[in-house]
Amino acid sequence: MKHRGILIVVSGFSGAGKGTLMKELISTYDNYALSVSMTTRKPRAGEEEGKSYFFVEKEAFEQTIAEDGLIEYACYCGNYYGTPREYVESCLDKGQDVILEIEIQGALKVKEKFPDALLLFIMPPSAKELRRRLEGRGTESDEVICQRISRAAEEAEGIENYEYIIINDKLDECVKEMHSIINAARRSPQRNKELIAGMRSELDALVKGE
Amino acid sequence: MKHRGILIVVSGFSGAGKGTLMKELISTYDNYALSVSMTTRKPRAGEEEGKSYFFVEKEAFEQTIAEDGLIEYACYCGNYYGTPREYVESCLDKGQDVILEIEIQGALKVKEKFPDALLLFIMPPSAKELRRRLEGRGTESDEVICQRISRAAEEAEGIENYEYIIINDKLDECVKEMHSIINAARRSPQRNKELIAGMRSELDALVKGE
Repeated sequence: MKHRGILIVVSGFSGAGKGTLMKELISTYDNYALSVSMTTRKPRAGEEEGKSYFFVEKEAFEQTIAEDGLIEYACYCGNYYGTPREYVESCLDKGQDVILEIEIQGALKVKEKFPDALLLFIMPPSAKELRRRLEGRGTESDEVICQRISRAAEEAEGIENYEYIIINDKLDECVKEMHSIINAARRSPQRNKELIAGMRSELDALVKGE
Repeated sequence: MKHRGILIVVSGFSGAGKGTLMKELISTYDNYALSVSMTTRKPRAGEEEGKSYFFVEKEAFEQTIAEDGLIEYACYCGNYYGTPREYVESCLDKGQDVILEIEIQGALKVKEKFPDALLLFIMPPSAKELRRRLEGRGTESDEVICQRISRAAEEAEGIENYEYIIINDKLDECVKEMHSIINAARRSPQRNKELIAGMRSELDALVKGE
């Protein structure tokens, strides 16, 4: 029997390097699948249906909400964004570990519905390094950088809700560490209820001399 | 600044291979120190003071209890056994990870006093394999084997108190996995309070434009 995969929720400051880290993780190891979000936002140039997003109309999105077809959803700037349950469940059933990149409010909603979900928080090595990375992009105004740092300060308040903190200093090492942390998380009693129940009933049978 | 080590508490069924695993872990990696217990039991042939145990008289042991010099202690068959605090603390301060092999009651006492302690539970791959290993020793009577299995069934009730379950199937792989799990545990928010506090205050300073 193939084991069911783990649902991995990744959050972290804008500028922590989540995107690059996820891409590298998925291309290095073959057990991961990236969850694809559903949105009512219009596709931008280069975005592919079913890869970047599942693009739907507002009515279809609200229908999916009504059918409990989303693990979590939120509304930003007048557009809906959500995580379709079906894709996630089918990957998990195939034994794949599904990665979901969302912010803290969404992460907590996912944890409620999937108590075995693994919540990871990605951080840069320091706040100064965070600012350096945001400035280094060269595309953002001072105002936007300030907003991102304020937002990071807010998100930092919720770090204790995550199971592990991952410091993204050197990309290669960080990818390996992340993979290794996910494998360690598979060994928690919470994620091994069947194994524990099996061992208990086997031991009871031996005690009774069966 | 050298980081303080982690206190690692290892429990598991008799016959799970804890002893061999610990020996291999300590000889393979150089960050571990094995805690040495204090006992009022008389030394057996080949046992070395300060290596096998710290051997003391009953009065000295009770004096150490009175001075809160033990992390945990218990009395078996008329002899005291306990974990001297001083040795553990000095290793942790040097940045070493200290391994303590004790049963569940002791493990829970340690967790109360050291909330950051990492509790690991070692299991054989199955209850049948456990019996095979106990029988394979060839030194134990059927009665003793039965007692050990009953004891294992009791200990199995407490598995949820441990942070990770380690399946000791192939020794080499298990040693590597155990090391990797311990490293993952270093990344829990609970064990990174200073890092989190530091990041928060750095971010706050940036927000205030300091």
